[in-house]
Amino acid sequence: MIVTLLTDYGRDDEFVGVCHGVILGICPEARIVDITHGVPRYAVRAGAVTLRNALPYTAVGVHVAVVDPQVGTERRAVAVRCEDGRLLVGPDNGLLSLAWEVAGGAELAVDVSRSPHRLEPVSATFHGRDLFAPVAAHLAAGAPIEDAGDPLDPAELETLDLPSARVEDGALVAHALLVDQFGNVALDVGHDELAGTGLKLGGGVEIESGGERYLGTFAQTFADVGAGELLVYEDAYRPLAVAINRGDAAGTLGLRADTELRLRAR
Amino acid sequence: MIVTLLTDYGRDDEFVGVCHGVILGICPEARIVDITHGVPRYAVRAGAVTLRNALPYTAVGVHVAVVDPQVGTERRAVAVRCEDGRLLVGPDNGLLSLAWEVAGGAELAVDVSRSPHRLEPVSATFHGRDLFAPVAAHLAAGAPIEDAGDPLDPAELETLDLPSARVEDGALVAHALLVDQFGNVALDVGHDELAGTGLKLGGGVEIESGGERYLGTFAQTFADVGAGELLVYEDAYRPLAVAINRGDAAGTLGLRADTELRLRAR
Amino acid sequence: MIVTLLTDYGRDDEFVGVCHGVILGICPEARIVDITHGVPRYAVRAGAVTLRNALPYTAVGVHVAVVDPQVGTERRAVAVRCEDGRLLVGPDNGLLSLAWEVAGGAELAVDVSRSPHRLEPVSATFHGRDLFAPVAAHLAAGAPIEDAGDPLDPAELETLDLPSARVEDGALVAHALLVDQFGNVALDVGHDELAGTGLKLGGGVEIESGGERYLGTFAQTFADVGAGELLVYEDAYRPLAVAINRGDAAGTLGLRADTELRLRAR
Repeated sequence: MIVTLLTDYGRDDEFVGVCHGVILGICPEARIVDITHGVPRYAVRAGAVTLRNALPYTAVGVHVAVVDPQVGTERRAVAVRCEDGRLLVGPDNGLLSLAWEVAGGAELAVDVSRSPHRLEPVSATFHGRDLFAPVAAHLAAGAPIEDAGDPLDPAELETLDLPSARVEDGALVAHALLVDQFGNVALDVGHDELAGTGLKLGGGVEIESGGERYLGTFAQTFADVGAGELLVYEDAYRPLAVAINRGDAAGTLGLRADTELRLRAR
Repeated sequence: MIVTLLTDYGRDDEFVGVCHGVILGICPEARIVDITHGVPRYAVRAGAVTLRNALPYTAVGVHVAVVDPQVGTERRAVAVRCEDGRLLVGPDNGLLSLAWEVAGGAELAVDVSRSPHRLEPVSATFHGRDLFAPVAAHLAAGAPIEDAGDPLDPAELETLDLPSARVEDGALVAHALLVDQFGNVALDVGHDELAGTGLKLGGGVEIESGGERYLGTFAQTFADVGAGELLVYEDAYRPLAVAINRGDAAGTLGLRADTELRLRAR
Repeated sequence: MIVTLLTDYGRDDEFVGVCHGVILGICPEARIVDITHGVPRYAVRAGAVTLRNALPYTAVGVHVAVVDPQVGTERRAVAVRCEDGRLLVGPDNGLLSLAWEVAGGAELAVDVSRSPHRLEPVSATFHGRDLFAPVAAHLAAGAPIEDAGDPLDPAELETLDLPSARVEDGALVAHALLVDQFGNVALDVGHDELAGTGLKLGGGVEIESGGERYLGTFAQTFADVGAGELLVYEDAYRPLAVAINRGDAAGTLGLRADTELRLRAR
């Protein structure tokens, strides 16, 4: 059984390794996939978008996500069964909500805050180790989700609001959703929202952000433009993205999560 | 069989990957857990404390640790069997000594410097690959520890001295033990040493360090204080720790390994 | 079956995790070894040298490498069977060429650009996920390499030119090949090329680079010189390397890939 992990724990401390240790101690046959541990600290929405993007590329399994600024407070901890059989485990702060959307919806939920699977005493600051990892490991080992906690109406689970792109005065008004380590920036623009904007492959694009205007190309891939040149492209998960070939678009254009941009065909 | 790794090799080079390759080449069924490879370079004590903290959360197995400023010199390389069955492998520089303490003590030791399991020729700078990984893999595959090297009296193994907290003039005099990547700082104060200090959950704490005084709260978790505020808390391994919610306590207070702090109830 | 991965994807995003997810989805019994994902972005030659160095330390398996500045263009994607049975998968830009040299040579090659194993639609920017990972996973699961793509004459595969050391005016003229995260620098000097240079273990070495001269010791290991002192040594893969004990030789001497150095016995 696959167990995937996505956290903001980083790789420089032992946090991730300890979670692996706990999981394999309970379920030695688990196959652990570290989706990423580089989610920016406490960036729940970035974690949620990354989990949604990655999930379709892993087998159905137990999917743990921990980006948890309210750890140790009364926020709920949950396990959720999706229509397609995936089991999600994490804090109930919206982090899991985009994942169950791409997995057919949340079919069943339990509150695992006092799960019989938890490691006692549960620390106030490391629920990844004491709660989420052991719950996930027991699920991976075949324990029924109903036994992992108290019943919870899936309609009560927290969800997230994402910004949405719109057309205004002939411009496509979009927002930065995710910035990767290279400064490539995914926008909240899908293929459908491009219709009627006049933007077309190979054509020019003007990007307005923070009062500045930048010129680029609507290209298919990085090597279609010169080094240091700006491109807009459909990224590997299909929304629109902004990059600079061999450069750092986020840094150059000053883009962060939620920054508004206006794109126009030129 | 679990094989855990803890090193200061970092993740940006191929050092860790090559050790995985060597281990799985010898023992294909080994389950490798990377506890961390982010120990600060040559920081033997930080590695020792981290290993001690993490060990109870992994199954009994073969536990390799490599923080080894004297690699290639005459320092011993050892394998140690603990009372609880864990097998430790690494340089004999104190790095393993806190681990066998939490594992019931060192029951049997061998000097593996010229182990029959080593990869020849042993390089002078990469014993992780040439010595520790292959010794660990053979142990994981079931080879008796007695065959891994020359007998060694466990009493001759190197140990570490840790600083210890004390009460002085009504203040708790503590020391920074470990700084994590977020700047949270674990101190050498256990639950017991808090008795009689007047420090209590929810109360104020004054921290004196480097001639400066800082005010914080003795809290249960990060979200109990505002963003940017200082807290003292029992960290997930139970000693006392200092942090700034959504901030960097080590940077702000100028704390490094061994820095002395004085804590007082306010 | 071992599947090794070497990329310039970094660890902070989900790229590596998604490749793991794809591989285990197709071949659940694959054992994945991450050789490194810290190759400097687009540094094909550094990736090729690292792969060549690491390969002999892993079991025969499927070896994926992705450092791919031309992703999404007409550059070929290939799978190569080596004389020793290893299967290499990656872009045809020279990245794999040093690997097949140490694996007995390229015996058979196929162009996998339109492989039946690819994930459709293949994105223009993430062939690791859509092409290389699924091809590798099917090979690991036992699919014949002949079925992974179109036949290709191994003689048509791209290769790399490496600089080579020479003796000139009594000096050994060498070049920086690889810089690791600690600033240690591997040179293009093998054991054989040392003959006749007068350099000998324990003796002094003068290094000239960028118009500056530095004095060091030809030592066996780091601890043979004091902290902050320069050493030249045979690194763990046997070419000559330059380091500063507990320091950063690349930064101090201004060395980058291809920098020319002149070494003389002193």
